[in-house]
Amino acid sequence: LDLASPYISLIKPQSAYFEQFGSLGFEVLERVVRAAHERGLLVLLDGKRGDIDSTNEAYGRGLLGRGSPVGADALTVHAYLSIDALEPLIHCAVETGTTLFVVVRSSNASAWALQDARVNEAESVAEMLARQLRTINAREAPKVPLGAVVGATYANDAAGWRSQFGEAPLLAPGVGAQGADWDDIQRRFVDVLDLVIPSASRSVLLRGPNEAEFVAAIKEAATRARNLLEV
Amino acid sequence: LDLASPYISLIKPQSAYFEQFGSLGFEVLERVVRAAHERGLLVLLDGKRGDIDSTNEAYGRGLLGRGSPVGADALTVHAYLSIDALEPLIHCAVETGTTLFVVVRSSNASAWALQDARVNEAESVAEMLARQLRTINAREAPKVPLGAVVGATYANDAAGWRSQFGEAPLLAPGVGAQGADWDDIQRRFVDVLDLVIPSASRSVLLRGPNEAEFVAAIKEAATRARNLLEV
Repeated sequence: LDLASPYISLIKPQSAYFEQFGSLGFEVLERVVRAAHERGLLVLLDGKRGDIDSTNEAYGRGLLGRGSPVGADALTVHAYLSIDALEPLIHCAVETGTTLFVVVRSSNASAWALQDARVNEAESVAEMLARQLRTINAREAPKVPLGAVVGATYANDAAGWRSQFGEAPLLAPGVGAQGADWDDIQRRFVDVLDLVIPSASRSVLLRGPNEAEFVAAIKEAATRARNLLEV
Repeated sequence: LDLASPYISLIKPQSAYFEQFGSLGFEVLERVVRAAHERGLLVLLDGKRGDIDSTNEAYGRGLLGRGSPVGADALTVHAYLSIDALEPLIHCAVETGTTLFVVVRSSNASAWALQDARVNEAESVAEMLARQLRTINAREAPKVPLGAVVGATYANDAAGWRSQFGEAPLLAPGVGAQGADWDDIQRRFVDVLDLVIPSASRSVLLRGPNEAEFVAAIKEAATRARNLLEV
């Protein structure tokens, strides 16, 4: 974090990599989040949670907002149980000024059969989720409780993002190890470069543990991202 | 646990209710799992995890199998990123002799638009996931790494379960507070009563904290379940 914080504004810790060490790992996650906040960084927890009713309330109480034990500023969530089912978490996001990133379009091709399945003649699963999250963001304006995860490897019709997702922030994982590059981000998100959060993980982390290499990788990714987003 | 263990064989802790207290809650979860094992109970962790690649490996290392920090015997998972993406977790389940319960049919009606969406003329999303998990269980036989979550409130054509899901165990939440009753279980799962795990949570827990009431609720639910499954 000390090496990276001059170049970045947000970190995206993977919950799984902390959970693999059980409660000790979870405690380290809490410390990482606090350390990031002390350095002025936002924290997007990639935990892909998602359930119904009071279970979602409990996830919100534990993970979302700086008053919670984990204290994340944003959280990735699954909507297989519907966007409606996420309402208790959405309520929590509105209350705490945090954001939920709903997985809509993943970066792995094997998921597209499910995500492109037809709800009806007009809409696929992914399009339905996009419309529903746009509706909820409109209801909660000026707050923006919902963003979307849309794989950087997905070759969407470039013009479609804003009409589909409105002003929702878009998390675009898959840069680097998963095969997308910075030019893909520029080409695929051309109409929403003000909303996109490109995310490179393994391509940066695997340049460590050598400090100079790691910092070089972060600077390179951050510079590419900044040039892109300020075009 | 001491009050309940004479009447039950498995507990299904909700990860969210522990995570709401952060790492302290996670530590309590680890202790509850160990205490359950000491009393001869199996533990199905309802955590609805699900990601891709090495992230799923990490969830496996942290949560699945008695050698892991959490030590669950089974885990609920999301397949919005596809069953293929779960392969690292499936590998872990095979290695550790544990089971993943893929959410296929949820007990909340708002989810059916997504779960009934058509992948093609022959299959809905839920049917595709069922077929894919049947294929993987066949590949791994005699091990059964995959089960399915199928809401007890869902009025499936009673004859269809075994042809859809093969010999996969079926977790059927939604008995009690969510509106299904034990007769629904009998009617809806008539051809797979040897495979179904009916689950009642709030309808039992809300009879506590009075000990006698709580034990009565557990005995009642366990007796109903036992009568049903041994018919």
